[in-house]
Amino acid sequence: MRGNSFGKMFSLVSFGESHGPAMGVVIDGVPAGLKFSLEELQKELDRRAPGKIAGTTSRAEDDKAQVLSGIFEGKTLGTPIAVIVHNTNQKSSDYDKIKNENRPGHADKTTIMKYGVRDHRGGGRSSGRETLSRVIAGYFAGLILPAVKVNAYVSKMGPFEYKTIPDDLNADRSPYSFPDSSKVEEIKNYLEDLKKNGESVGGRVRIVVDHVPMGLGEPAFDKLKADFAKALLSIGAVVSFSYGLGEEMADMPGSEVGKHENAFGGMEGGISNGERMIMTVTFKPTSTVGDKAKEGRHDPCIIPRAIPVVEAMVKIVLADHYLRQNAYQIK
Amino acid sequence: MRGNSFGKMFSLVSFGESHGPAMGVVIDGVPAGLKFSLEELQKELDRRAPGKIAGTTSRAEDDKAQVLSGIFEGKTLGTPIAVIVHNTNQKSSDYDKIKNENRPGHADKTTIMKYGVRDHRGGGRSSGRETLSRVIAGYFAGLILPAVKVNAYVSKMGPFEYKTIPDDLNADRSPYSFPDSSKVEEIKNYLEDLKKNGESVGGRVRIVVDHVPMGLGEPAFDKLKADFAKALLSIGAVVSFSYGLGEEMADMPGSEVGKHENAFGGMEGGISNGERMIMTVTFKPTSTVGDKAKEGRHDPCIIPRAIPVVEAMVKIVLADHYLRQNAYQIK
Amino acid sequence: MRGNSFGKMFSLVSFGESHGPAMGVVIDGVPAGLKFSLEELQKELDRRAPGKIAGTTSRAEDDKAQVLSGIFEGKTLGTPIAVIVHNTNQKSSDYDKIKNENRPGHADKTTIMKYGVRDHRGGGRSSGRETLSRVIAGYFAGLILPAVKVNAYVSKMGPFEYKTIPDDLNADRSPYSFPDSSKVEEIKNYLEDLKKNGESVGGRVRIVVDHVPMGLGEPAFDKLKADFAKALLSIGAVVSFSYGLGEEMADMPGSEVGKHENAFGGMEGGISNGERMIMTVTFKPTSTVGDKAKEGRHDPCIIPRAIPVVEAMVKIVLADHYLRQNAYQIK
Amino acid sequence: MRGNSFGKMFSLVSFGESHGPAMGVVIDGVPAGLKFSLEELQKELDRRAPGKIAGTTSRAEDDKAQVLSGIFEGKTLGTPIAVIVHNTNQKSSDYDKIKNENRPGHADKTTIMKYGVRDHRGGGRSSGRETLSRVIAGYFAGLILPAVKVNAYVSKMGPFEYKTIPDDLNADRSPYSFPDSSKVEEIKNYLEDLKKNGESVGGRVRIVVDHVPMGLGEPAFDKLKADFAKALLSIGAVVSFSYGLGEEMADMPGSEVGKHENAFGGMEGGISNGERMIMTVTFKPTSTVGDKAKEGRHDPCIIPRAIPVVEAMVKIVLADHYLRQNAYQIK
Repeated sequence: MRGNSFGKMFSLVSFGESHGPAMGVVIDGVPAGLKFSLEELQKELDRRAPGKIAGTTSRAEDDKAQVLSGIFEGKTLGTPIAVIVHNTNQKSSDYDKIKNENRPGHADKTTIMKYGVRDHRGGGRSSGRETLSRVIAGYFAGLILPAVKVNAYVSKMGPFEYKTIPDDLNADRSPYSFPDSSKVEEIKNYLEDLKKNGESVGGRVRIVVDHVPMGLGEPAFDKLKADFAKALLSIGAVVSFSYGLGEEMADMPGSEVGKHENAFGGMEGGISNGERMIMTVTFKPTSTVGDKAKEGRHDPCIIPRAIPVVEAMVKIVLADHYLRQNAYQIK
Repeated sequence: MRGNSFGKMFSLVSFGESHGPAMGVVIDGVPAGLKFSLEELQKELDRRAPGKIAGTTSRAEDDKAQVLSGIFEGKTLGTPIAVIVHNTNQKSSDYDKIKNENRPGHADKTTIMKYGVRDHRGGGRSSGRETLSRVIAGYFAGLILPAVKVNAYVSKMGPFEYKTIPDDLNADRSPYSFPDSSKVEEIKNYLEDLKKNGESVGGRVRIVVDHVPMGLGEPAFDKLKADFAKALLSIGAVVSFSYGLGEEMADMPGSEVGKHENAFGGMEGGISNGERMIMTVTFKPTSTVGDKAKEGRHDPCIIPRAIPVVEAMVKIVLADHYLRQNAYQIK
Repeated sequence: MRGNSFGKMFSLVSFGESHGPAMGVVIDGVPAGLKFSLEELQKELDRRAPGKIAGTTSRAEDDKAQVLSGIFEGKTLGTPIAVIVHNTNQKSSDYDKIKNENRPGHADKTTIMKYGVRDHRGGGRSSGRETLSRVIAGYFAGLILPAVKVNAYVSKMGPFEYKTIPDDLNADRSPYSFPDSSKVEEIKNYLEDLKKNGESVGGRVRIVVDHVPMGLGEPAFDKLKADFAKALLSIGAVVSFSYGLGEEMADMPGSEVGKHENAFGGMEGGISNGERMIMTVTFKPTSTVGDKAKEGRHDPCIIPRAIPVVEAMVKIVLADHYLRQNAYQIK
Repeated sequence: MRGNSFGKMFSLVSFGESHGPAMGVVIDGVPAGLKFSLEELQKELDRRAPGKIAGTTSRAEDDKAQVLSGIFEGKTLGTPIAVIVHNTNQKSSDYDKIKNENRPGHADKTTIMKYGVRDHRGGGRSSGRETLSRVIAGYFAGLILPAVKVNAYVSKMGPFEYKTIPDDLNADRSPYSFPDSSKVEEIKNYLEDLKKNGESVGGRVRIVVDHVPMGLGEPAFDKLKADFAKALLSIGAVVSFSYGLGEEMADMPGSEVGKHENAFGGMEGGISNGERMIMTVTFKPTSTVGDKAKEGRHDPCIIPRAIPVVEAMVKIVLADHYLRQNAYQIK
């Protein structure tokens, strides 16, 4: 196993190089009889699409999901679901110049260290396009747990920060997934300035999950928090994970922690306790800076596009643990 | 799979309730012919032993490792290695009073949510004693990668903080694993005061790893950083994980990150690049506070005792990834 | 993974060398709240005990099961169940003479090929004692599916053959597990003669399973028949597997097969159809023959002792598939 | 995991319904840098193609392999290899009449038992077309072990039987994979007669493997013989597996077995010993008989077409075990 699969009972394998014929995913472990909508799936993919968010990359790819198996007459069959997205807009010529170049912060160098070869036309497996597979799988994970609400938003991007949890988690937060909608214009200008200057910026994403069934998560190694950490750190640009009060607890006496409502973000002993789940991840700034970053395809901040990927990974973990827990309810 | 196993090629399963007959671990995936020393293994266990560190719990258990299989004439056989530690000092009577009590921050409540039953004599699987299995497995992981140096230390505990990386990583940092040895007396007093007041404190642990082979880690999901995050978050009291510059990158422009040497803590694209690995985890304060915490067995700060557990989990991840990478070197 | 584990949701890892301190098994995946009886477990172990069947090995081991974890107040906790059996009667001295000898048909030679080292005091992991782990796990598998009746019996041993399926599958068939109880004396004499002559004999075991739930088994690779085949061929002395009409179908036209009731032994498309399951395995004769076989410890025919092992493996496969199927029943 | 994946280090997941858009496979675990030839891969697929063997089904599908990922400039990248075959010639109308019919011996009934729904246009996942995924994966497995020669042939089909192992294993045995080429005309007539009469026939396939490295196979559960049994029984029509002298050993005294050269078909203790491997499987006759079988698409005997599938499964098991064994060679 080379690491391209994830999940035990809701299990997926991702494939595809950014400049090969197609990206895709096979999901084994979706129960039979669930209602499927290609339109809803496509909507999720569109949320991570480049070129649709001002200030983000102008690469206007048309990422159309094509279902190859597992669906019949609008329902899941219980068989493996394969979905692919053709790479229609990969101009390899753009990348010819980087053929023998190891872009700092990319996986170029380590890919060679590991495999001895590399698809030099682009990021290969390390490209952000790989996350298409996760968004697709996340859609199907969501079918398993329709009542669970997974909500991620930008809690910090450069100077913009939103510290509390918004009341209305279902509000439309496009295009930047920042809860304070009055800042949209400012953010747009900020990102355009970054772009102009060949600069990039990191930030933070907060994840709020409501209505998680109690009792999910497994001692000792597959604690829910451990599997969330893995799932989210498996996203290329994520550099930290915390849950509940997180890093703040390094500075708090136990008595103070005890006074907080839900200090542990919905998980005790690694198991969901039915309370609201709260997690936070840090994104590093995009590595490409300077003149190269001023060119067409580069995002000064990828976080808004990563929001559906973050939500997908959380859904996948929850669906997997739900099925695992369900297996043992035999009475 | 209920989540008590970890690793793919270096694979372990942990078992044991804190108040049952024994804790233990079976490790499948240790190559044959490696030199084994019971004394060295015991030394690792002793590092996490309670009652040996002033200010930490006075439960003087004698955690003696007993090897049941996999070792013959001082060498590994390539067969599963089973090691157990008897629970000799578990006074269930101490726990009778908590039989019907859900200790906040413990897994008591969620264990019932999950299984419907629970061993009410103690933490069961959620007890800190479960980490014995990890320290044992970590010892064997270390045999696979003898050149790799994994070094964890307390970088923050209450008011005590050590911000840089110590020059001499091999120095004896007992009893508190804090790099500034001039602070030992102060820390002792601090912990004793906490104990007296029924208070507890969290902190941070920094992990430095040298001489990691290049090319370890797998795209897309089994990135090294993702597996480290999972391994470390699977430790009960750990509430955050970061690597390299970590959370700081939320506030940094890409150009500044690029100027840092080793901003990504030895991993690019989730794969080891041969540079020093740097990771940080936050520990929450022990949940038990107040009058109960003043009684015998409770630690005001468990971080010093957790250091060998942290190191073990890092070694386990590295050994597993090393074997996985090695599998594909077929030419 | 070195191959010492089995099962996905009912998952076990086996450990122990025949001449090490103990054999054992850890089972992760037993639901919580099932009633446990040490006496019943011990009864299963006793069925495979040597020295209890005339004509079989006189090694009077006392294989006492000791539960280390996972059971509390007579019930399963849902946590990993570890059970060990101490190797109390292993006279290594008996084996000193075979230290540098590769016994034909044993794994001696291939173990060295594989690992470079070997515990030369006995069969190590390849010893028949390893099957203790399976009998133990089979007991717990049986708790999950109490209605399912797994019945294995000797359908052929040397000249003794029983071609039909006995009416009373629950009859006591000790000591030889041969359905025609009028043959006990003859079989006894036959086996004693074999022993006297340093000869051994193979045979066949038929497995009949009633009341299997419909719908167990997974296309494409984890078909029930495929997992049974694997489970049974993983027993050292088993050299063939078939189900339903089996090998006979090589000589039958399709129209004739269609006329048989239950030609496919309760499985269609690899999935249980609710009918009686029928499988057959062949055992090779014990490899040790000649003067050496006349000595104390060697069985001229191990099949009667293997019956509980066969039944255990079938139960394990069924329990695993039952939990897997159960996981996906989410409505 | 619903059972559509196979292998641990050479790991594949198969997908596709016979009447959906495409069949396919994703293989994770092919080392980087291996030379790939689409032409060679296609040749393997053509060997199982219907309509190319007189007397076999006239469904002239054009099963063209399309590589979606994992290959670059004629070499494997070490990333997941996805290959699909479009279902171009599936006339669903042919199947409309069977919509509400459970074909005996097919998985129709059990599929409904299991999932509650089914793609009634054809066999779905239980269709013989699923084996395309195995042939594709087998090609890549072969790249890992180029020196190993896996050779399967029809040793029995109706009245035609070939009892010894042919001297020239590399001879062209098309179109029926029967070693006695003088029988081709007779077999052709025999199969055409069967077809005319709406009859079908089963048979046996023998598998001979040369040049297997020593030391492959894992005690206790992943014995090579166990994994072969599983791999071969996972083929829909296979109803028995044996190796070496197989079922014959039920009638042999141990002394006689000992006199045979290679009685255990190249495996001792479940581990390859470097000798020639010999295995035998039985195929049941096709279930469809009577008037329906006289129609266009049905084979009176599918064994010749199954030969490349059998070889592929054997190669997959060997490649997987080779990588696993290789992982632990760390010195």
